[in-house]
Amino acid sequence: MIELTEKSLRNVIVKRPRNSHKGSFGRVVIVGGNAEYGGAAILATTAAVYAGSGLVTVACHLSNHTALHARLPEAMVVDFDDLPTLTEALSTADVVVIGCGLGLERLDLLTEVLSALTGTQKLVIDGSAITLFSENNLKLRFPQNTIFTPHEMELQRLSGLKIGCQYADRVQKFVNQLGATVVAKSSETKIFSPSQEIYFLTIGTPAQATGGMGDTLAGMISGFLAQFHGEVRETVAAATYLHSFIAQDLAASQYVVLPSQIIEQLPKMMKRFEC
Amino acid sequence: MIELTEKSLRNVIVKRPRNSHKGSFGRVVIVGGNAEYGGAAILATTAAVYAGSGLVTVACHLSNHTALHARLPEAMVVDFDDLPTLTEALSTADVVVIGCGLGLERLDLLTEVLSALTGTQKLVIDGSAITLFSENNLKLRFPQNTIFTPHEMELQRLSGLKIGCQYADRVQKFVNQLGATVVAKSSETKIFSPSQEIYFLTIGTPAQATGGMGDTLAGMISGFLAQFHGEVRETVAAATYLHSFIAQDLAASQYVVLPSQIIEQLPKMMKRFEC
Amino acid sequence: MIELTEKSLRNVIVKRPRNSHKGSFGRVVIVGGNAEYGGAAILATTAAVYAGSGLVTVACHLSNHTALHARLPEAMVVDFDDLPTLTEALSTADVVVIGCGLGLERLDLLTEVLSALTGTQKLVIDGSAITLFSENNLKLRFPQNTIFTPHEMELQRLSGLKIGCQYADRVQKFVNQLGATVVAKSSETKIFSPSQEIYFLTIGTPAQATGGMGDTLAGMISGFLAQFHGEVRETVAAATYLHSFIAQDLAASQYVVLPSQIIEQLPKMMKRFEC
Amino acid sequence: MIELTEKSLRNVIVKRPRNSHKGSFGRVVIVGGNAEYGGAAILATTAAVYAGSGLVTVACHLSNHTALHARLPEAMVVDFDDLPTLTEALSTADVVVIGCGLGLERLDLLTEVLSALTGTQKLVIDGSAITLFSENNLKLRFPQNTIFTPHEMELQRLSGLKIGCQYADRVQKFVNQLGATVVAKSSETKIFSPSQEIYFLTIGTPAQATGGMGDTLAGMISGFLAQFHGEVRETVAAATYLHSFIAQDLAASQYVVLPSQIIEQLPKMMKRFEC
Repeated sequence: MIELTEKSLRNVIVKRPRNSHKGSFGRVVIVGGNAEYGGAAILATTAAVYAGSGLVTVACHLSNHTALHARLPEAMVVDFDDLPTLTEALSTADVVVIGCGLGLERLDLLTEVLSALTGTQKLVIDGSAITLFSENNLKLRFPQNTIFTPHEMELQRLSGLKIGCQYADRVQKFVNQLGATVVAKSSETKIFSPSQEIYFLTIGTPAQATGGMGDTLAGMISGFLAQFHGEVRETVAAATYLHSFIAQDLAASQYVVLPSQIIEQLPKMMKRFEC
Repeated sequence: MIELTEKSLRNVIVKRPRNSHKGSFGRVVIVGGNAEYGGAAILATTAAVYAGSGLVTVACHLSNHTALHARLPEAMVVDFDDLPTLTEALSTADVVVIGCGLGLERLDLLTEVLSALTGTQKLVIDGSAITLFSENNLKLRFPQNTIFTPHEMELQRLSGLKIGCQYADRVQKFVNQLGATVVAKSSETKIFSPSQEIYFLTIGTPAQATGGMGDTLAGMISGFLAQFHGEVRETVAAATYLHSFIAQDLAASQYVVLPSQIIEQLPKMMKRFEC
Repeated sequence: MIELTEKSLRNVIVKRPRNSHKGSFGRVVIVGGNAEYGGAAILATTAAVYAGSGLVTVACHLSNHTALHARLPEAMVVDFDDLPTLTEALSTADVVVIGCGLGLERLDLLTEVLSALTGTQKLVIDGSAITLFSENNLKLRFPQNTIFTPHEMELQRLSGLKIGCQYADRVQKFVNQLGATVVAKSSETKIFSPSQEIYFLTIGTPAQATGGMGDTLAGMISGFLAQFHGEVRETVAAATYLHSFIAQDLAASQYVVLPSQIIEQLPKMMKRFEC
Repeated sequence: MIELTEKSLRNVIVKRPRNSHKGSFGRVVIVGGNAEYGGAAILATTAAVYAGSGLVTVACHLSNHTALHARLPEAMVVDFDDLPTLTEALSTADVVVIGCGLGLERLDLLTEVLSALTGTQKLVIDGSAITLFSENNLKLRFPQNTIFTPHEMELQRLSGLKIGCQYADRVQKFVNQLGATVVAKSSETKIFSPSQEIYFLTIGTPAQATGGMGDTLAGMISGFLAQFHGEVRETVAAATYLHSFIAQDLAASQYVVLPSQIIEQLPKMMKRFEC
């Protein structure tokens, strides 16, 4: 196992080339946000924008569009029940995130995304989409381009390994079969990729144990994948490290750290580690 | 009578354990916010999140969902007229708040909450729910887990003691019969618990005498009860003290202190008193 | 003519009594905000809250409720087409503002307000309500409790005095007949009351010449009238002076000063002049 | 070719005359913002207000009104499908912007604007309106009052010059025929006017390569044109220079610069260059 350090950030956050435009930094589509959990999609979308993706679209329940725009005019909105528009958005995406506040009733959207994506697109599967994936024994067409971000209960559903028995070697064995990268979130988050050494974090804080944190991480990962084109697992590791790094930094003066507060710090913190 | 001091905060706001997750800090459900008084529910919900509850859901009139999410993507929303979803949310709550902007026409929701809760859940009854409780002679099934937060007129309705005659011994006698904790809000707020010495506050400021302050206090109390597991009255006292402490601190440089401003200070102020 | 100075603020902004509650600082009802000009009502309402009114309700077009609450959960909302609820709100108001974004099609609401108010309530008539009042030759039942806040074109409509001919003595003569206080807004704002010396401002800045400024002033005046109980004209003068004072202060470092920015400064600036 | 410097700002941003009112600084109408791209119209509108236009109205899809007002109560809203109201708004405008999030399905609105405007009004054509203009071979009635703000692909559509072949002399030749001012956005933005020397920017940063930046520039240009009455190309050059200047300034400490952050800096930055 390899402990992640600030070096993971310096390796990934490269200086932007002078001759670039918004297309250079990738298109992200976030699929999530039903009528009850719209905030999750808002957080993921905001994280993707603040992390530097060039163009971000959220496909969510229509009732969330106004709140999204009231917070973030920088993103575009699609009704996730408008399949033609969603399909078109997916076709132009460099990275797709599915699951942030999606809800367990939307298996249709997960299968749509899984079948629509091509081998040149990345896919982040978070939250309820992990549960849907697990319970319906779905398959990945391009596991090497796929990232799962389960917390412990979701990892149990995904891997069959019960909480308390999610030992690193067992999870690694599961990930080798799965073929995808897995960010196993806990108070000791680890990142697994097939046949690779495990990354683990020693930073992070209980102050960040609050609703919406996972959605924020998923959005950050998508923003990193959209613009940084090194190995998937290095890019995912950098985003995950930065998420906990900012939380820990804020926790020096805050008893609780909110997802929105982490997002706000992204532009400055990324500058700090630009290399 | 015992004067509350900063010590009440240091006793309650414990350092968070390293090995924790959002579930460790409790689930709060806020029931309130009709079409006219949606802001009250928004303030209570925001206070619960900023005070550190792990997961917060607001059950309110559908017309308030967008404004809530535009301010606070960290919370989840339920339509308070969707009884099955509300019932499910209540069943998973550690703490329920009812009354912030609920309105006097929703006796049905108060009786639903009173009958749905079990002996392991806490209940905060605020605002119009106090009036409804009083006028309909409702009963508590678990008074020891219940907190009322009346202002003087609401205390009159609840106890029958007229404003001007709410002497501490008379209120204490009433509280002994009621069996619940009562935060009697006034310019000299007192906290009563059955057969306990009375707590009183000497801090606070007329700058905080503005609409929404009570809702903010109710939300803070719920956030404290969700994550801190000492005696109810100590936890309630700490939240109440912190509310006035922040108001007084801000009033040093402000003629008026708004509820939203108190809420924003919570993460830093709680850190200051973490012990 | 008397030049207003900071003294006008010190005379009005008294230290709040310790033994007070939100009712002590008055109830304001703002009537305005049609579907097109909702922002005007939002600004007036926000100004009333930040200026320290204890309880503020806005009666506006239903389509503005969500935006209002997304910015200001501290206020309550009423649909201005729900006459019974509006009438009830008006009956409890200490101060009513009508006109901020009301639109010229709502004569019905102006006549409703004029007939509903009693001699113990104050009334601020702003924006389109001034035009409606003028064009329909309406009458005031309690002119001594009424404040008009016209800009030059509205003063022309109200008084018949054309722009360029609005000399102080002529306006004073008109005001003596009208019986109300008139804040004549221009680059040299003056305040007229029947048979009183004229107040004039030498502060203010062209940086504040932007949409929404008048609505903000109307809201501030209402907040002052709700909580300060000296002579109407002194209270109105103080609010008007403070509005320009903050604008001028911000204009030292800003080319443009937005209404929202003035509002944000109110709590601190009022503290500065508290006496 | 002439390199733009801070002098372009000092020449244009004149000290505001003391004797002025909101009408002195012009009326802007922004036409854009369909259901999917409402954020673009919100950003353009906000930029116009913060850049100092006296009165700003946005004509967009009804679903965007609430989000707009939640962010910016200083602007007025019109449903862009309410033609009579839109026509009236257009008739009073000093500057019209069309295209920010308009969408390719609204040729009707572009032709309406092109035919409604008179020779005393300015017109900024941005985003999808450039594509519509190009694909439908539309004509300008008053090219000397018209500004196009294409990025490279839009310039290809407008001029027929392919990306990679948009050499300055060829674009200039095209602009001489077009008769309008063209802000050719790229990592080396240039401003062309008929038979004038070309302006070019050496400032700007890849940190600003993110969705919504073009909309923000269009809004800023409209705000400048509304209040500054020198030559069109000088005014447009100043707004364009300021946009990149602020972005570069923020990029000193941020890896990504968001449009909203540029807008917030406008009042202070314009003060800095006031002359």
